Amino acid sequence: MSGYIGLDIGGTKVLGALYNEAGEVVYRCKKKTKVHEGLDKVMAQIFKVLDEIMAATDETIMGIGAGSPGIIKDGHLVVFAPNLPFENFDLGGIIKERYQVPVVIGNDVNVAMYGEWKVSDMETVNNALGVFPGTGVGGAIIIDKQLYVGQGGAAEIGHMVVNPGGAYCGCGTAGCLEAYASKTGIQKAILGQLKKGRVSVLSEAIKNSGAIIKSSVLKDAYDSGDELAVEILDMAAYYLGIAVANLVNIFHPDLIILGGGMMESMGDELLPGIMKAARSHTLAGMLDDVEFRLSSLSDDAGIYGAYRLIKDQIE
Amino acid sequence: MSGYIGLDIGGTKVLGALYNEAGEVVYRCKKKTKVHEGLDKVMAQIFKVLDEIMAATDETIMGIGAGSPGIIKDGHLVVFAPNLPFENFDLGGIIKERYQVPVVIGNDVNVAMYGEWKVSDMETVNNALGVFPGTGVGGAIIIDKQLYVGQGGAAEIGHMVVNPGGAYCGCGTAGCLEAYASKTGIQKAILGQLKKGRVSVLSEAIKNSGAIIKSSVLKDAYDSGDELAVEILDMAAYYLGIAVANLVNIFHPDLIILGGGMMESMGDELLPGIMKAARSHTLAGMLDDVEFRLSSLSDDAGIYGAYRLIKDQIE
Repeated sequence: MSGYIGLDIGGTKVLGALYNEAGEVVYRCKKKTKVHEGLDKVMAQIFKVLDEIMAATDETIMGIGAGSPGIIKDGHLVVFAPNLPFENFDLGGIIKERYQVPVVIGNDVNVAMYGEWKVSDMETVNNALGVFPGTGVGGAIIIDKQLYVGQGGAAEIGHMVVNPGGAYCGCGTAGCLEAYASKTGIQKAILGQLKKGRVSVLSEAIKNSGAIIKSSVLKDAYDSGDELAVEILDMAAYYLGIAVANLVNIFHPDLIILGGGMMESMGDELLPGIMKAARSHTLAGMLDDVEFRLSSLSDDAGIYGAYRLIKDQIE
Repeated sequence: MSGYIGLDIGGTKVLGALYNEAGEVVYRCKKKTKVHEGLDKVMAQIFKVLDEIMAATDETIMGIGAGSPGIIKDGHLVVFAPNLPFENFDLGGIIKERYQVPVVIGNDVNVAMYGEWKVSDMETVNNALGVFPGTGVGGAIIIDKQLYVGQGGAAEIGHMVVNPGGAYCGCGTAGCLEAYASKTGIQKAILGQLKKGRVSVLSEAIKNSGAIIKSSVLKDAYDSGDELAVEILDMAAYYLGIAVANLVNIFHPDLIILGGGMMESMGDELLPGIMKAARSHTLAGMLDDVEFRLSSLSDDAGIYGAYRLIKDQIE
């Protein structure tokens, strides 16, 4: 028996899974990325995930696919990653040397989009876009049934400027979508309001969270009607809608997939605001041409896409 | 001897030219579009241009190519045009019936981009974008050496939202690029300030212009240091730069062509502001990957592209 490993390296966690010949997950493992402890620690966490999977199976590992944030070149080199300590870093080469199997690395959101594409009926779709708000806001573009990467760094939908002169983003720009619609941006906005003395059920969760707040905690606060949570999350939905409108006006695509940790947890809460803002900012008639779908793989899009990427490449 | 006619139908003027076998313009003709007098008048103006060209030559006309604003389907049907009275209008069929030659209609900006592509070394370029501020703000997208139109209405770069909640655009959206960077938007902004009692050398020109102000008049006002003209045009450049930044972050393209009446007249005035805003809103490193070029065909991009479109289709 043989299998493939799909790896999803995020700013918060490293998720890995072993897929058998039937494409089923037979083992999965998750560790914190521990970005704040530096590159060696991040690599140690990645190796822990892979080691645990390797130790848990007798199957022959045919290859490892992985998604990483950032600009990836030639399937192995991470040129730059916004939330990880990778810079001109041969992530693929290092994993390949340690485990002696073929390895392919892709941009995390592109890889997730590839996964969505492979499980859906998306083969019939020519032009599709992915918008994935989570720790950051990822994007992916499929043009004429191919992943579009331009010169390598395309589809940075999270860094579309939706409010010039607005909130600062981690990238240095004022007014990026990511500054409003990522958990990082939302946490910063809520913290800023708490400092002004505003009250929120999120107060303890945010002050106690060493890292990024969980989507499920945001969802509970929103559903309880917490004024601050509703205000900030409605603003996130509004700017996501502006971004979606811009994508519709620019691409007139067949399909837009909304995914990522936030849509997964809070699709019901965010979607009405997204679609309302999208409708008021698209050219007449164009929005109705576009199919919208929530990510069907949810958290598994990354590992599944990574698995399909290496499997399809080897086969 | 034989020739082709290239036609550029705009919101302000209809420009036509006869191209000989060597690709040279041997006759040209320009009439006002007279949009405010309705569809019949617009068609009469188009026929006047074509009749005059036909009457002026003994050459056999092989075909007519034309660019029109709006969403064009199947090379002849204008589904909708923002600044012209065409709606589900078989413009191509009507011209074909009257002159009994092959006719092809394309979106004006796409056609202009096709022209730019054909005269430049753009055949070596995979992914390119066109941003064309004039009466409106047009856009064009070339992906993998092909014009990209999505479901037919893509590349509406003028309707990218660059300032949500901002100035109203003719399309109904608040904050489109076109509301800030088109002559229509600029004229409206200046008029609004004049009403507040602000002073400008443009006062007479704007009050006396029945239609849209000329780019050359705006340029003279800017170059004379007129405070209001500088303020409004610098704002146009700023929002054009935001739009360019978004295009770079989304497409990471090889080339961006800046054209249209405003860039043609005021490239020197607008470019520094565009590039400054583009730099402060793109992801680190990405802007330097992109080549910027001013439209080389200027006003003739439309007629040349239309000529090449019909010629290439017939041959």
